[in-house]
Amino acid sequence: MQNKQILIDSLPQGKLTAKNFRCEESEFPAIGEDEVLIKTTALIISAGTRAGLQGSASYAGAPEAGRVMNGTGVGEVVTSNCDTIPAGSLVTASTGWQQYSVHQGRAVEVIPADHDPVRYLGALGISGLTAYFGLLEIAAPKPGETVLVSAAAGSVGHLVGQLASIHGARAVGVCGSDIKAKVLVEKLGFEAAVNYKSEDFRKALKNVTPDGVDVYFDNTGGMILGSALFRMNKGGRIACCGVVSQYDTDKPEPSPKGIPGLLINKRLNMNGFLVFDYAERYAEARHQLLTWLDSGELQFLTDEVYGLEAAPQAFVDLLSGGNLGSRVVRVN
Amino acid sequence: MQNKQILIDSLPQGKLTAKNFRCEESEFPAIGEDEVLIKTTALIISAGTRAGLQGSASYAGAPEAGRVMNGTGVGEVVTSNCDTIPAGSLVTASTGWQQYSVHQGRAVEVIPADHDPVRYLGALGISGLTAYFGLLEIAAPKPGETVLVSAAAGSVGHLVGQLASIHGARAVGVCGSDIKAKVLVEKLGFEAAVNYKSEDFRKALKNVTPDGVDVYFDNTGGMILGSALFRMNKGGRIACCGVVSQYDTDKPEPSPKGIPGLLINKRLNMNGFLVFDYAERYAEARHQLLTWLDSGELQFLTDEVYGLEAAPQAFVDLLSGGNLGSRVVRVN
Repeated sequence: MQNKQILIDSLPQGKLTAKNFRCEESEFPAIGEDEVLIKTTALIISAGTRAGLQGSASYAGAPEAGRVMNGTGVGEVVTSNCDTIPAGSLVTASTGWQQYSVHQGRAVEVIPADHDPVRYLGALGISGLTAYFGLLEIAAPKPGETVLVSAAAGSVGHLVGQLASIHGARAVGVCGSDIKAKVLVEKLGFEAAVNYKSEDFRKALKNVTPDGVDVYFDNTGGMILGSALFRMNKGGRIACCGVVSQYDTDKPEPSPKGIPGLLINKRLNMNGFLVFDYAERYAEARHQLLTWLDSGELQFLTDEVYGLEAAPQAFVDLLSGGNLGSRVVRVN
Repeated sequence: MQNKQILIDSLPQGKLTAKNFRCEESEFPAIGEDEVLIKTTALIISAGTRAGLQGSASYAGAPEAGRVMNGTGVGEVVTSNCDTIPAGSLVTASTGWQQYSVHQGRAVEVIPADHDPVRYLGALGISGLTAYFGLLEIAAPKPGETVLVSAAAGSVGHLVGQLASIHGARAVGVCGSDIKAKVLVEKLGFEAAVNYKSEDFRKALKNVTPDGVDVYFDNTGGMILGSALFRMNKGGRIACCGVVSQYDTDKPEPSPKGIPGLLINKRLNMNGFLVFDYAERYAEARHQLLTWLDSGELQFLTDEVYGLEAAPQAFVDLLSGGNLGSRVVRVN
């Protein structure tokens, strides 16, 4: 038996292309003490992993040519040398883009048997946890406030807007197409959404935020952050979550104008965060998110592609905004 | 009797020069009901007022050609139609750059008779209050933390470093000359200070912050903010107080690189503030600041010039970093 894998063929120069990856069959992995062998059934493709391909990461196991592309997957334990995770368990782990992977038991999270595993790639996974802690802990919107979110049709963004609505705030999205904007409003209950690629974006943003913006959940940085700064109300909060506008390039654009001048005049608070700092509270957040998912107050959108070989192009497409919701690769 | 005044002759194009001002003698002002006539004895020149000369201010009474230059002064009440402020009172008010000015009683603050009025231009005035609330409320350094402050020899900065030391933190200053750096360390008790104009500034900054920076009190923005961002520790706080590097120009430089990327990776909090939001707590802060001044724990440096006619050049000089401490104009 062979293990199909997507390897990084080369780190990208400029924009990522599917040619930066290659597909290979490798030896089937063997497992050691306290380890489990996982057969991946689905992967999430996250824009944030593009940053790791910029070549500046220096931790052990950082992405580099010849390695399996990194990513979170869900799957089934095929063989186990770990007492607490028997064969047949549904799990989530840093599987990478491959059919089979071996993990220490402690690096694997078991999914309750009656749960949809794909939710653990999105609404109950890192995206949902990021939306939960970033919005509710960092930005803490109050009822009636206006919450603006960028990359609003993305994996994190589409959840952020809904969490804002659940908390009585007015959710406004910035996204990359008119169709996405329509889905955000008509299907997910955003009060408004605007397409940043439209010619009159700044004017449109002003029109849909007549009372200004109290909370901005920033997934993009760049021009959209710059535009949001001008709509912020006095005392507004900006939760800095991601910089997707700057990932797929080796020439990042300058930071938005007016920093720190606008921060002072408007008494703004910009707060960068990483969800991993909240690891001890994941269970609490998942419990709450699950309640909202089950009640239908929170909808989790996935945008699925089929087959491991489709992952590289699905990643490239994601970086130009091709996805609506969390981009999931079904691994066969 | 005539009233000597410094008027704005023209709003500056590019860098401010003394020619943007003119000196005139005007009619002596008359006072109405509930008003007082103040004879100014000293003024403070603040870098922040340069921003108001950029021509974008739109409030009533905004600086424009033909108006008396705005600024805070201290002086003596010469004539009073206000029961609570008898003639002879020492007061502080928005006198502007002139010998005599008329104010509603409620727009004037009476200085206790046994106090040095000049302190109300600095350590007990807006500079001291800004240092107090910005450092202790916004940034809240803990004992043992490293507090970096820019424009550290300036009106606000030299107080910030000392307040940090009083609270058990390690104060490090960034200033614009080696002499200033020496004064900060040897006279004011900063643990270290570096000259941003030196060739190896970034290296020097790294050397004097071996444990990184926990709190950055930013008076400058621009390149110094950019350098500080790279020294920040995870979870660090940046109190955004002023942007003096960008005031004296009509072509502001781009914002520092790495915003919001570095904010996310380091979980930084950038918080803009204006001291006026704390007006209800000025009395509490002044009481505390006075205690430290009287005990000698807090030293207030003034850098004085003599005569109203000297004010324009003293302002120009201040904007290129000529001052050490609060720049005060003695009005004769």
